Amino acid sequence: MSVTAPAGFVAAGVTAGLKKSGGLDLALVQNLGPLRSVATVFTRNRCQANPVIWSKQVMADGTVSAIVLNSGGANCYTGTAGFQVTHATAEAVAAALEIAAGDVLVCSTGLIGEQLDLGKLTGGVAEASALLKTPEAASADAGLAAAQAIMTTDTRPKLSEHRAPSGWSLGGMAKGAGMLAPGLATMLVVITTDAVLSSAQLDVALRAATRVTFDRLDSDGCMSTNDTVSLLGSGASGVEADLTEFTDALIALCEDLTLQLQADAEGAAHDVAITVQNAQSEDEAVLVARAVSRSNLFKAAIYGNDPNWGRVLAAVGTVDEADAAFDPYGIDVAINGVQVCTAGEPDQPRDLVDLTPRAVSVVIDLHAGNATATLWTNDLTHDYVEENSAYSS
Amino acid sequence: MSVTAPAGFVAAGVTAGLKKSGGLDLALVQNLGPLRSVATVFTRNRCQANPVIWSKQVMADGTVSAIVLNSGGANCYTGTAGFQVTHATAEAVAAALEIAAGDVLVCSTGLIGEQLDLGKLTGGVAEASALLKTPEAASADAGLAAAQAIMTTDTRPKLSEHRAPSGWSLGGMAKGAGMLAPGLATMLVVITTDAVLSSAQLDVALRAATRVTFDRLDSDGCMSTNDTVSLLGSGASGVEADLTEFTDALIALCEDLTLQLQADAEGAAHDVAITVQNAQSEDEAVLVARAVSRSNLFKAAIYGNDPNWGRVLAAVGTVDEADAAFDPYGIDVAINGVQVCTAGEPDQPRDLVDLTPRAVSVVIDLHAGNATATLWTNDLTHDYVEENSAYSS
Repeated sequence: MSVTAPAGFVAAGVTAGLKKSGGLDLALVQNLGPLRSVATVFTRNRCQANPVIWSKQVMADGTVSAIVLNSGGANCYTGTAGFQVTHATAEAVAAALEIAAGDVLVCSTGLIGEQLDLGKLTGGVAEASALLKTPEAASADAGLAAAQAIMTTDTRPKLSEHRAPSGWSLGGMAKGAGMLAPGLATMLVVITTDAVLSSAQLDVALRAATRVTFDRLDSDGCMSTNDTVSLLGSGASGVEADLTEFTDALIALCEDLTLQLQADAEGAAHDVAITVQNAQSEDEAVLVARAVSRSNLFKAAIYGNDPNWGRVLAAVGTVDEADAAFDPYGIDVAINGVQVCTAGEPDQPRDLVDLTPRAVSVVIDLHAGNATATLWTNDLTHDYVEENSAYSS
Repeated sequence: MSVTAPAGFVAAGVTAGLKKSGGLDLALVQNLGPLRSVATVFTRNRCQANPVIWSKQVMADGTVSAIVLNSGGANCYTGTAGFQVTHATAEAVAAALEIAAGDVLVCSTGLIGEQLDLGKLTGGVAEASALLKTPEAASADAGLAAAQAIMTTDTRPKLSEHRAPSGWSLGGMAKGAGMLAPGLATMLVVITTDAVLSSAQLDVALRAATRVTFDRLDSDGCMSTNDTVSLLGSGASGVEADLTEFTDALIALCEDLTLQLQADAEGAAHDVAITVQNAQSEDEAVLVARAVSRSNLFKAAIYGNDPNWGRVLAAVGTVDEADAAFDPYGIDVAINGVQVCTAGEPDQPRDLVDLTPRAVSVVIDLHAGNATATLWTNDLTHDYVEENSAYSS
């Protein structure tokens, strides 16, 4: 059902002609209310795409009625002309749906540095807007089409939903197969809910959720210029959700989407969960895990089914002492349940580690405190190199 | 001539049996004096190999008479037993050459987490020590053998030398084909000189040189646990070198070795020089260049001969504002001389960029100040993945 699962939302996915492949490439999601609550998290990259610059302005008044998303071009580093394309797209949505352009979020994904074709965009907006006015717009199929329309190198759409016993629900869609990185894993994510919650409440919940889910997916260390996670609230269930219960459900939904993104990461052959235990703080645990997730040598070893724990420790050692306190010679490492290193010395033979399954667990015990965090990454493969050396050609 | 080019040095490279390939794997370089000046720079990785821990102790008194280096094992994360192997190796050298063990630097390179065979090491030391006492030990062939004995995945030895008009000379050898990273590019480097300079003078010169050479080679972003650059001074020329002239020559020699390391980086198909111009400071220029050099997406694009400047800017944007001041929308990018982006907008067509040559130049103009720095990196290739997914198996 994706974004159409909660009451008060309609969606569409159409072919605007932006993708060379001719596939679906424009998605439109409208919040029919009665509430127009919203929260967003944007990329921390200083180089921000025009849709991000636009959408930050839209967020100023805490009200969003619709979100339009396109694949086939990032509209980043396209200057004033590119910003005008984003603005005109929002205006087209506003005119078609009879809402304010200042209440329309815009997201784009694709190649940086090329202008989008405004005619194709507005054509797609017209088609999608017409679809939103049909009964099918609230269907599971409509939610699926929207999720398909935002795919780039994704091989499958990412959908998730949750129905709370008390009567409200959550729905979400996500895309992103490369540039899954820090501070927000790539990607575009739209989450909808019919719970009765204010924008301020959604913001609290969304930041709590992204901190432990999308922010901890670091597939290839590259931070996108277009990352946007949005959470729209219609209030259409009429049920005031308990914020703690809502946040827990949102975290679970975001984790589900995160793991779907990880499982479909460009060219990946292994899904690696790096858990750092007994750090002095959760932030330090994340920092150490991120250092390992950024090591190409470690990632290539995993691809080669090689439990090369020396590369784990070499990566751990690159973290400054000021940033994470631990004794570099007192660390344990377990890979897929086999403790290959204890207190900085070889323990079980590395041959005991079976790395043939896609799922890989690396557990690093710092023996420095009580905090734990898990970061998700992928291996470095021939297919990753292939996909990313030929992307724009 | 390598390390035997300056007067007062003898060298040998022998087969101790540590390498599975059966190739040369133990090098010994002796400083015959009259001076025993020395300077070193070690990895900044907190996880340091036993030879690094040992050698730091050796450096305490500013006197070094010999350096022994082995490939075939890093002796890192091998605990107390591993440290004893390093210590025993130094003792063996000391006994054979009738010097103090506390004046023997030890370097190791290879796989982390496996014990070295002490018997093979001491056998190699005995053989190499015997060779040092022959007339051939000062020859170019001896220098070459030493350089070959420290190779791991290197495909060729790296040698350099310089003869100053005033009568002193420099010689150097280097190894390192992966883990060429920050804060020191992998590797083991031994540089010798017969100039009359104190350890304190050598230290000033060496730090000035590594800062702008080895420290700016970031092939794959991975920092080794064993990196050691050593500079030994015999004073045998009898010529007191001008420190500025000496430093300039040392920088040139280190840059020569750095570019040899880059050209032989594991699996690389392109040698990329990233120059950041008009930064507010040299440190900021290096930081921005390093962010680009760490982007797998950028590196894969270069491998695919794809002048994807959007990936350059996306990487530039990951640098925090607090760390480097620039307007992210005011940046120019030129690739191989073609200005593909001006002030954050597309300029010349990317098709004009020819990326078929191995040498690639990326120039990023921040328009934020007057400082410039160049960092060297490589592309991300199938061969890199292949070599590093099968290294320990």
